[in-house]
Amino acid sequence: MNLILLDTADFIDSHRVRLTGRRFVHACEVLSVTNGKTLQVGLLGGKSGTGTVINVHMHSLELDVRLELEPPEPLPISVILAMPRPKVCKRILQGLTAMGVKNITLLNTWRVDKSYWKSSVLAPAEIRKQFILGLEQGCDTILPRLQLQPRFKPFVEDSLPDLVTGTCALVAHPLCSQPCPAVVQQPVTLAIGPEGGFTSYEIAKLTEAGLSSVQLGSRPMRVETAIPALIGRLMCCH
Amino acid sequence: MNLILLDTADFIDSHRVRLTGRRFVHACEVLSVTNGKTLQVGLLGGKSGTGTVINVHMHSLELDVRLELEPPEPLPISVILAMPRPKVCKRILQGLTAMGVKNITLLNTWRVDKSYWKSSVLAPAEIRKQFILGLEQGCDTILPRLQLQPRFKPFVEDSLPDLVTGTCALVAHPLCSQPCPAVVQQPVTLAIGPEGGFTSYEIAKLTEAGLSSVQLGSRPMRVETAIPALIGRLMCCH
Repeated sequence: MNLILLDTADFIDSHRVRLTGRRFVHACEVLSVTNGKTLQVGLLGGKSGTGTVINVHMHSLELDVRLELEPPEPLPISVILAMPRPKVCKRILQGLTAMGVKNITLLNTWRVDKSYWKSSVLAPAEIRKQFILGLEQGCDTILPRLQLQPRFKPFVEDSLPDLVTGTCALVAHPLCSQPCPAVVQQPVTLAIGPEGGFTSYEIAKLTEAGLSSVQLGSRPMRVETAIPALIGRLMCCH
Repeated sequence: MNLILLDTADFIDSHRVRLTGRRFVHACEVLSVTNGKTLQVGLLGGKSGTGTVINVHMHSLELDVRLELEPPEPLPISVILAMPRPKVCKRILQGLTAMGVKNITLLNTWRVDKSYWKSSVLAPAEIRKQFILGLEQGCDTILPRLQLQPRFKPFVEDSLPDLVTGTCALVAHPLCSQPCPAVVQQPVTLAIGPEGGFTSYEIAKLTEAGLSSVQLGSRPMRVETAIPALIGRLMCCH
């Protein structure tokens, strides 16, 4: 938790915030707060700044909060991801959020186990929890948008061509020969397949929709590794 | 397990291998092998190729093995990493191996908890286990070399200047302004700090030893994310 994320409901006065629960425990046990200590805070959906501890009680603490900084720029990389195993999915949603991705699509593909779509990790409260953890890690306040696309063909045929317009549109495909570009100066749409990859039918459909196949070395990567590897390569950082 | 890693002790004849234990279970339960099925195999430290299933018993199976392919090129990126939390360390050693890193140094720094150096994850058998898992993931057969450097100053002053000679030598430092380069065409030495980063004294010593500070965006990254993000960015893939 590099930033303590606040909700409007936390405010007990215009500049005064009361923290309880998980954030209170973190402030006490990890940050060892005492009166006068300053913490990095941010308002969900809004600005970030500092919170000065003014009172530590048994089960809560109060902060005097000044919010003056704009949130960091969104990462202009939209990610379309074959629905991962539920356990991995949680970590991935958190990790994408922490890296600043604001548009995430989970897509069905041939090699996605159908049961994944019924997993409790897709419950809105669970998704939000992972997003919050990611924002706290990445010192950000703006929630990503998540789209679920449990039908491959209609999404790729009807929606994807518009989504990729004006972007550098790529699909990570270990079997192709074109290396993934680096430090791309325009918005990116990046599709990443499931364990085992997209089928050749799926690659053909994604190509039709305007995506180019790219690879990142000959070694098969876990999805959890491929995502930061591709994003770290593609991103501009000024 | 994208490749079944063989040891010379597995050979019961010049081309015949018997698998038991973890690899046997994987072949049966994940790959659902039957006679005649071909698996990707590799000899630890040697060539890779195919193994054709010729017998499946209750607790073992036999393969007819043909090893004709050289292992993939080593990734020319040497990683110097502040000793991570033991639980994270296992995953990191596995992940670095899977990406093809062959030189890994674990280094003590100011923000490394001293207890980490006594962890059982640093037992040679534990390290080897993570390396094997990484090679199986990355379809590689060549074990990395691991160096433990529990004393920062002597390593950085006496050994590091020689190690970085002729390489693009970088230290990931979120507070600097220079973006991390991409697709570097020469060997790389990459130093990555602990949670909370290197101290400014440590950065000064690393700079003296010839490393340049680079950053990858303003959002703090977990070490598990920073490693693939930096390697994915730096690597050449033809």
